[in-house]
Amino acid sequence: MDEGKVIAAQKIIGTHVYNTPVLTSRLLNKMVSAELFFKCESFQRAGAYKIRGATNAILNLSDEEKEKGVVTHSSGNFAQALSLAALLQNIPAYIVMPTNAPTVKKAGVVEYEGHIIECEPTLEAREKTAADISKSKGATFVHPSNDIQVIYGQGTAGLELLQEYPDLDIIVCPVGGGGLIAGSCLAVRDLQLDCEVIGAEPFEADDAYRSLITGTIEGNKTTNTIADGLKTQLGDRNFPIIKKHVKEIIRVEEEEIVEAMKLFWQYMKVIIEPSSAVTLAAILRERSRFKNKKVGVILSGGNVDLQNLPF
Amino acid sequence: MDEGKVIAAQKIIGTHVYNTPVLTSRLLNKMVSAELFFKCESFQRAGAYKIRGATNAILNLSDEEKEKGVVTHSSGNFAQALSLAALLQNIPAYIVMPTNAPTVKKAGVVEYEGHIIECEPTLEAREKTAADISKSKGATFVHPSNDIQVIYGQGTAGLELLQEYPDLDIIVCPVGGGGLIAGSCLAVRDLQLDCEVIGAEPFEADDAYRSLITGTIEGNKTTNTIADGLKTQLGDRNFPIIKKHVKEIIRVEEEEIVEAMKLFWQYMKVIIEPSSAVTLAAILRERSRFKNKKVGVILSGGNVDLQNLPF
Repeated sequence: MDEGKVIAAQKIIGTHVYNTPVLTSRLLNKMVSAELFFKCESFQRAGAYKIRGATNAILNLSDEEKEKGVVTHSSGNFAQALSLAALLQNIPAYIVMPTNAPTVKKAGVVEYEGHIIECEPTLEAREKTAADISKSKGATFVHPSNDIQVIYGQGTAGLELLQEYPDLDIIVCPVGGGGLIAGSCLAVRDLQLDCEVIGAEPFEADDAYRSLITGTIEGNKTTNTIADGLKTQLGDRNFPIIKKHVKEIIRVEEEEIVEAMKLFWQYMKVIIEPSSAVTLAAILRERSRFKNKKVGVILSGGNVDLQNLPF
Repeated sequence: MDEGKVIAAQKIIGTHVYNTPVLTSRLLNKMVSAELFFKCESFQRAGAYKIRGATNAILNLSDEEKEKGVVTHSSGNFAQALSLAALLQNIPAYIVMPTNAPTVKKAGVVEYEGHIIECEPTLEAREKTAADISKSKGATFVHPSNDIQVIYGQGTAGLELLQEYPDLDIIVCPVGGGGLIAGSCLAVRDLQLDCEVIGAEPFEADDAYRSLITGTIEGNKTTNTIADGLKTQLGDRNFPIIKKHVKEIIRVEEEEIVEAMKLFWQYMKVIIEPSSAVTLAAILRERSRFKNKKVGVILSGGNVDLQNLPF
């Protein structure tokens, strides 16, 4: 029923987002005996893939809905992304952020003219505050990862990668809230390609790994990971897609994430955030799994706090 | 007498080096009210522009000379660059390095199969050791910055930038040993363009600034700068070119270099080394000088020690 929707999203979001470059490295290829194709969303607008889904969600609103704006709760990249996407369409964005959100994240939202509404740092408070804003302003709620238009939009990163390299054997994708990997699965299906989608997540936030085993959405037991974008939970819109299409989730240790991040910075000279580095960490950890394969790697973004690096 | 030599070097080195991307940023442009075009040599082979000159020097040797190999003294990017350039031509490279050179720099040379010869950490010892190797092995000495074929080769970075953006008003270039800026001047002249070349260097290693004032090569009074690639001295082959073509050298403080580096990492997600960041620091410091201009910026490389960052 949702076939062709990622391709449709690509047409809709068009030039509002960048077609980011795909980078390769002979040294990294040699290291893992595979061909790696890195889709670098660090170079995306606002520094992460999130603008894709945010833009698609906004552009699928009616004119009346657009006028009243959008609201979300996020303390991460989606807050900035929705603010910028709204700014580019000249509509208001209301961003519910916990009082303890990092100053640098708030500054990012302000830079893109998002309206910040603070709330207590609990999921209940976030959801209630967002619902209140939605009611009072008439703004449409856009979930960072569990919104179907967001999922289609996020899928355009993988779609572009596959359009450029249709013969990939595998795509490796980080798993946080599940929007990116679900969208990537739908991109593969939209192009009718025979390409596996493998997830990567930290041991410290392995809800997707366990959910795939039990077949129902499992919560994170811990979220003590440097990959701050991957602390979030799967949702009921994206999990059925993940369950149907994703064969395997590889979990990685915190030190492996830091090592992979450093390796990528050193060899590629491109800044990626820890949530992106889990993919390379997974490939390095399970390299026999990828041997002699053509592997697409979705690097989700490059928003790191340079004052607080893990090395 | 050396007209057209940078264009000739470009033909000679051909695909042995990369035509690196030119990046732009609306945010940085807004910040300085100018249009900046960053030539990103971080993405060059071995992570810096140095491979250009090294390759040109080697490819201008006779077959007999090539067979006997090349020798240089360098503890920085040129050591790796000459090793790699030699490896690609399948000839030996002898690299004289001081006993106190950082392990990471030695490892870089070993990675590209250069032969390291250690010497005492004085200029005299370096020069004597290199001369000895040259005699015993018959290897041709290639100076990192004061060799005319190296200068022509380094000029190809600016040449590519100007071929892509022929209407630049100014090119800003870091000044260390002087090879890159001298080559950039010759690139402007080879293309018969009306484009100023401005140098950028740390106050802590301002030999070029003072040399341009007195008209003779002045030594560095201090070299206590984070921009480790810019500690070297101008030479008698490149200074006459610099004296003739360079209008101005802008000096910057150490904190300005660190700030510019951080800003670039944050906004562009590309790793540049402190020696590259002096250029952006100079533009930020003297922004009225660049207002409403189209400014090419040569970012020399991205080789930084991630374990030892200044922020």
